[in-house]
Parts: sequence; C-alpha cells; structure tokens
Amino acid sequence: MGPGSELPSWNDGAAKSTILDFVARVTREGSRDFVRPADRIAVFDNDGTLWCEQPMQTELFFAQDRLKDLAANDPSMKQRQPFKAFLERDLKAIHALGKQAAFEMAFATHAGVTEDDFGQIVRRWFTTAKHPQLGRLFRRCIYVPQVELLSYLRENGFKTFIVSGGGLDVMRAFAEDAYGIPPEQIIGSSVRTRFDATNGQTSLMKLSEVNSFDDREAKVQNIGLHIGRRPILCFGNSDGDLAMLRYTKTGSGARLALLVHHDDSVREFAYDREFRLSPLTEALDKARDYGITVVSMKKDWQTVFEPNLQPSRQPVDRPSPRSADGIRAG
Amino acid sequence: MGPGSELPSWNDGAAKSTILDFVARVTREGSRDFVRPADRIAVFDNDGTLWCEQPMQTELFFAQDRLKDLAANDPSMKQRQPFKAFLERDLKAIHALGKQAAFEMAFATHAGVTEDDFGQIVRRWFTTAKHPQLGRLFRRCIYVPQVELLSYLRENGFKTFIVSGGGLDVMRAFAEDAYGIPPEQIIGSSVRTRFDATNGQTSLMKLSEVNSFDDREAKVQNIGLHIGRRPILCFGNSDGDLAMLRYTKTGSGARLALLVHHDDSVREFAYDREFRLSPLTEALDKARDYGITVVSMKKDWQTVFEPNLQPSRQPVDRPSPRSADGIRAG
Repeated sequence: MGPGSELPSWNDGAAKSTILDFVARVTREGSRDFVRPADRIAVFDNDGTLWCEQPMQTELFFAQDRLKDLAANDPSMKQRQPFKAFLERDLKAIHALGKQAAFEMAFATHAGVTEDDFGQIVRRWFTTAKHPQLGRLFRRCIYVPQVELLSYLRENGFKTFIVSGGGLDVMRAFAEDAYGIPPEQIIGSSVRTRFDATNGQTSLMKLSEVNSFDDREAKVQNIGLHIGRRPILCFGNSDGDLAMLRYTKTGSGARLALLVHHDDSVREFAYDREFRLSPLTEALDKARDYGITVVSMKKDWQTVFEPNLQPSRQPVDRPSPRSADGIRAG
Repeated sequence: MGPGSELPSWNDGAAKSTILDFVARVTREGSRDFVRPADRIAVFDNDGTLWCEQPMQTELFFAQDRLKDLAANDPSMKQRQPFKAFLERDLKAIHALGKQAAFEMAFATHAGVTEDDFGQIVRRWFTTAKHPQLGRLFRRCIYVPQVELLSYLRENGFKTFIVSGGGLDVMRAFAEDAYGIPPEQIIGSSVRTRFDATNGQTSLMKLSEVNSFDDREAKVQNIGLHIGRRPILCFGNSDGDLAMLRYTKTGSGARLALLVHHDDSVREFAYDREFRLSPLTEALDKARDYGITVVSMKKDWQTVFEPNLQPSRQPVDRPSPRSADGIRAG
C-alpha cells in the first residue's frame, strides 16, 4: 500500500489523522511511544461497532428464527413472554427488555445442541438471512471502514480481538470470514457447557445457564481472563463499552480509545441515548474527559457498506462465487 | 533446519516418528490429511508436561513464599491447616490435599492484589527462586524436547496453547519467555476479579473466589470457551488431561494425542499412579484403547533439561545476560 492510501473508506479529518498518527507512533522503532508487536493488542466491540445493530442485534433475529422452530413443537410459547415478543418481532417490547434480558432469551434458544452442530446451524442461517430494512445479507451488514481498519492494524503488527456482548458461538460462525478474526480471538457472552463422552465420541453440549454476560465491567474482566494484557487500542459504540475504553486508555504509554457515533440516518441509522437495547449516554457525555475519540459515521466514513449489487447485475461471463451477492463487486 | 535435524533432543524411535509423520501429513498440501493452518491448534498441559511438577507444582512453591509474607502479619496461620502444611513444606500433608484443594489454597494467597502488581510479584520471584532438588531456577526446569516441539509445531503453522490447572497469572509471568507462548494463548485456573476505576486509574483486582479450576472436563469446556475449535494435537501427562486428550483424538481427520510418562528417576523423577497431587492411572491404562501415544521420558528424550552450568563457568570476557545461569551455555 502506497503512502496516503491507508484507510480509503475513511474521510480525511481528525478521526482518521488520530488513528494514523497513533499507529505511526507505536510502530516506529526508537519512538518514545514504540510498543513491541506482542503488546499491540486491539479490542473491538461487535454490535454497532463492526456491524449494524438496528433495529435489534443480528443475534436476536437469529434467535427469533430458532424460536419459530421451537414453537412449532410447543405452540404455547406463542402466548408466553418474552417469546411472544420475539415471535411477533414486537420491537417495542423487545427494546423494553434491555440488552441482558433480550440476549439471555436468545442464549436459552441455543441450548441443547453441541457446539459443533450449533456452529453449522448458525453458518447455514447466515448464508440466506437478510436484514429486513437494509435488504442485504446480515453478514454483509459489516462496516467497510472498520474492516479496513482491522486489516490496517494487523498489517502494523497488531493482534485484533472482538470483545462483544453477543454470543460467542454466533460470532465465531462468521467473524473469521467477515473480519479476518479467528475464533480464539473472539470474546463474547457464553453459556455453560457439558462435556459428553459416549460411544467413542466426545462433544461439548451447550446448556441454558449463562456463564458470562460480556458487557460493561465484565468486558474488562474477560479481557483479563482471555488476553491477560491491557489493550492499547479499543473501539466501541455504547455505554457497554465504556469500562473497556477506560481500561485501555488509562494504561501507561500511548493509548487510543474510539467510539462510533451513529448519526447517519441516510446510509445507516441515527441513534444514541434512546436505544434501550444498548444506549450511548455516559460514554458520549464523558468522551472528552476520558480522552475518547468520537467517530461520526456521517462525517468520518466515506463508505458505510459495500455496494449491494444484485446477482443479476453481475456480468454473466465472469462468474465469481465471492461476488455472488455483490460484496466484492464495488 | 535441514532434513533429519528436527527435534534433536528426541531420540529416534516410535514417539518421534509418530510426531514427525503426523506433522508431515497435516501440512502437506493435497494430502488427504491436510489441515489448513488456521485449524492447526495444539494444546499442551503445563505441570509435568512442559516442566517439572515434583515434589509439588512450582505454583505451590510460589504460594509457600507468599504465605510466609502473609504469616508474618498473621502468625496464627502457622498453626492452622492447610497453611501450616505449606509453611513447613510438609509434602505428605500437601499431597494428601489433592490437586484442587492444594491449588485453591494457592489461589487464595494470590487475592487482594491487582493483576498488574501480581504479574510483577511473580516475575520477580522467578528471577531467583530455585528448585530444591534440581538446583536450578524453576523457570529453567522446563523440558528441552518440549520447547523444541513447540517451536517445531509453530514453524509448521500450528498455533500453540497451554491448557493447565495452574493459575493463569503465574503461567503468564514466565511462559512467553520460556515457551514462546503469549498470555492470550494460555488457559488456566482463574479467580474472579473486580474492575476498579478510581482517581483516573483502572485495574483488575484479584479476588479469592475461584472462577474456573481448569482440570479434567473443565479443560475441554475452557478450550470451547477460549479457543472455539477442537485441537488436532494434545499433549498431557496425567488423568487431569484425559478429557482433552480424548476430545482432541475423537475429532474427524488426522489427530495426535500424547502423554509424557515420567519414568526417569536419574534425570528427573519416576512416578505415575502414586502422585496424589496429579495421578496418572486411567490415562495410562486406557492409552492404547484411546489411541494415545505414550512418550517415555527415559527412552524418548535424549536431553531433559538444558545444562545447568554455574555462572562461574562462564568465560569472564564474554558476559551474556541470557547465559548468566547457564541456560544458553550448552
């Protein structure tokens, strides 16, 4: 990549300069702010930071489809809350649950399946499930500037991690393809599992009991458990990320903490305080005090999503599996 | 490395051939057993597999020294069990506790310190603490053939992990130097932590409550939580490793499960069933049934430890910090 060609989907401005300057300082040998590659740990929230979380997080759409299957065997679920709200996609009722209760409902629908089988179910779902308003596959609702940033950081010796409230096994089913982040660098909410060994086979069975709901302080605790080093870069978008933004920013040496602000009602959605599933209030109010860089989706991102060309717009004489739904066609 | 020069500290024989053959098969493009690099996950137990665990695990020696500091402020500990047993290094009493109770005592002595401070305490301890019988620094009680094997696997595209019953933060303080395994690839027993944010500083405070005691089935559950992929190679040395050896071995495709058998009373120690802190009984009896390769320390390892030259044997005109205790002098 030639000079000046970094992060092409980011508009020139303060946010982009801050990122480029930070990476230059920590990677320049002999610089006062130099950080050895092993300590270049970058952590990213997922929902609302790397991909769209409106009108509710993708995992809740997935859980809705799982619930439909479960309700086919137990029709009484259709009349019981919170299942009724999900089955009818009653957004007002779902939002009123708040993040933890909504996700715990989702995790409950994931139980009773082995981890291997669950991974296959999720991967199959991702091949066809579409966002109802954006009209694109959920796995294509990822933010181009962030995918560029993740690559750029890795090219500069960073190790990139996801630290999200979303369910571990749902993220692991798409994040390697989507972001280049392997399963072992994903931290998320998790359920307890049971080890089974029968008939010469072994498996991990997912249970309904939550092991860790990875939000707020728990994100920092899980960084301690899974990574064991204080990150030097953290990117979030909600109050659920504030603890890890502060944990990152208050270490010694050069540090960068960033927050996506969803202020783009044309290309994506504009929201912050009022989104009850994951509000952005305190982190926005205190960003300046805490030295957190606020990134405006509207002003700082030249592109949000990859162009969403329909398959019919592909030249028929140049078939390409990767551009079948248009993601690589831009 | 030229052909035939792999694993020089391993004697030619069935164990070495099995390892070399396995690595050749999974890395040869086009081979029926080829495994893409991202899925080349190798997990190693630590105590007794990568370093010496006799007459008790290193972490218990560390805990003994921590207890001495604590007992200086609370002399009544000297009369109370299990503290008394550790303070007097009463091996019979310590062994009788069994692994989990002995380690939980150790974890209790780690509480009330931030993770950052604890890391410093452990690193300082490792600079001088010596094994009482082997007469070498604990951090030099690592097995040369295993350090070679870890490097060899990484050269062949494997990602190497530790999955140990030992405390996470104790291992993280020495494993990167000793084995080339970074903190985020270490899975171990863990305590709960508390996130503190005061006066513009943040920290994770270690608590005494155990979060996970990483032994037996818990090793597999933690592989699910931290790695999210079934390993293709697993190396252990006790019944505590049997669940993960079987989990590894029963996946599809080429798989390798190995067990160190401590049968070398001359160069190290000879023990298996009778070691109450971590017995090897069922895994040894069932090794053949489960397809686990038993490695004899006595027959399969040409070297066990690096030569333990004394500093006085270093040429005075060629000082070298890395060879101060002789580890690089061989």
